[in-house]
Amino acid sequence: MPGEFKIIERIRKAAGRPSGALVLGIGDDCAAFRPSPGCETLSTSDMLVEGVHFRLSQGLPAVGYKSMAANISDILACGGKPLYALAAVGLPEKGAMRTALSLYSGMRKCADKFGVRIIGGDTVRSDKLVISITAIGEAAGGKTVTRSGAKPGDYIIVSGELGNGSAALKKNKAWLPPLRPELSFELCGRSLVSSMIDISDGLSSELYHLCEESGTGALIYEELVPVSKAALNISGGIRRRALSAAFSGGEDYELLFTVPAEFLGTALKLGRRHAKLSVLGRMLPARQGVKLFGSGKMKVLPRGGYDAFI
Amino acid sequence: MPGEFKIIERIRKAAGRPSGALVLGIGDDCAAFRPSPGCETLSTSDMLVEGVHFRLSQGLPAVGYKSMAANISDILACGGKPLYALAAVGLPEKGAMRTALSLYSGMRKCADKFGVRIIGGDTVRSDKLVISITAIGEAAGGKTVTRSGAKPGDYIIVSGELGNGSAALKKNKAWLPPLRPELSFELCGRSLVSSMIDISDGLSSELYHLCEESGTGALIYEELVPVSKAALNISGGIRRRALSAAFSGGEDYELLFTVPAEFLGTALKLGRRHAKLSVLGRMLPARQGVKLFGSGKMKVLPRGGYDAFI
Repeated sequence: MPGEFKIIERIRKAAGRPSGALVLGIGDDCAAFRPSPGCETLSTSDMLVEGVHFRLSQGLPAVGYKSMAANISDILACGGKPLYALAAVGLPEKGAMRTALSLYSGMRKCADKFGVRIIGGDTVRSDKLVISITAIGEAAGGKTVTRSGAKPGDYIIVSGELGNGSAALKKNKAWLPPLRPELSFELCGRSLVSSMIDISDGLSSELYHLCEESGTGALIYEELVPVSKAALNISGGIRRRALSAAFSGGEDYELLFTVPAEFLGTALKLGRRHAKLSVLGRMLPARQGVKLFGSGKMKVLPRGGYDAFI
Repeated sequence: MPGEFKIIERIRKAAGRPSGALVLGIGDDCAAFRPSPGCETLSTSDMLVEGVHFRLSQGLPAVGYKSMAANISDILACGGKPLYALAAVGLPEKGAMRTALSLYSGMRKCADKFGVRIIGGDTVRSDKLVISITAIGEAAGGKTVTRSGAKPGDYIIVSGELGNGSAALKKNKAWLPPLRPELSFELCGRSLVSSMIDISDGLSSELYHLCEESGTGALIYEELVPVSKAALNISGGIRRRALSAAFSGGEDYELLFTVPAEFLGTALKLGRRHAKLSVLGRMLPARQGVKLFGSGKMKVLPRGGYDAFI
């Protein structure tokens, strides 16, 4: 059975030598990098547990890819440029080296695609496979976009189509989200976005987060929600069923954001160069609550969404 | 059963509002901070798994404290000032809120003691308790200390006394290491240290790391190794037995570092204001290997140490 240090040594060789702003990579007590002058440093951690967030039957490279993508998505959701990642992995003893390298190949594929370097982490023993990734990125000073900047009247927009994550899960596959770096850089770099979040737990719960953090209500229109073909397929072509995958299904990793009315035209024009964008509705004063208009009726949007502990 | 968001909400309230260089704390997609001009950003991740790295019977606050300390120790080992931490935790469903808050109280106690703010993380469901902390710190540009800077002739020094971690484990307690921020800042800030590592896995394996990364050998003297009272106590007062706790036992989190001969006097004088320091020996050319002189004999130092996968 290969030792922890052998696994780290293999990953370290695959990662290559530090260069550019990276001063110190895998293999020391810390990684070190030079932050870009005038930038804010962004960081985020996600933990994924075998049997809760993924199954081994989804394939280790896909699980690795998705784990990395989930963290990169959080950096993009704050308008940041993802740069580095630390990957801590708990590995079952049997086949630890093979598991580590297979998982790492998927993480690395995703990291490479989005310009992220894996600069450190940890490998330990664990009964079940556990993955905890920390992604680090940067945004120009004052340009970090939060969940809390929306105002009543702002338009609510979502990228791409929803329900892909949910559809993949039903087929026991890991969804490899496209992510939207160019969209995020373009709109956030020009300060066109008042609040943003990535859709990891379904449209409903993410919209509630934006409203609660911004102190607003919202009204969205059911007919404007972009449902993916995959979600329609697993729903027998019935849009109402597919909508539940969009509202409550998880792991789409599309961007949900708000744009002040005066920037709507510019944001759509610039943003649509990079991704499909759907305007879902508008933010409202908090007292009006979070509403959904559909089938001729106005109702309270069910919070739904996926909560790990319910 | 409380939801994930309720746990995060409780921890967020306890953490307080962002201030100073911290722009965005717990509760958004990312945390954001302004790095200090001219500094390098250091980051490190450790994962700890119930039954492998700790037992619940050690007490959750102590486990939380130790987890945080292990990460802060890595920042100090690179000469950095620890600033922030992200804590990702996998919690068994039963009693998740109580477990989370109890663990967090220990993490927070350690973080507060060393001036670290917990700025984010994740809470998920898991069969066994899993803790993955990422610590972030800063060092002045070019002052990050690595494992690889030692030269033959440099003196080898260790802080404090060894065997405390091992002794505590034998009593099924979590060792709450003192850590040595002032020592690290003083010596690294003045560039007196050529290489450094923290002792998480025992003196032997850490010395091998320094030698391998620096491309040197080493000679240390058994009689100069500072053995703790706790290690002597669990060894029936027999120093030879206690030495094995120092060489192979883990989790002491003392600093092992090398100092060029011309700085030895200054380093000891300044460093001893902050911690007990023991000179163990000197670095050698690589071809001479890693040697231990004890009981009148010169031998190869057994690599020993704790390797998670052996």
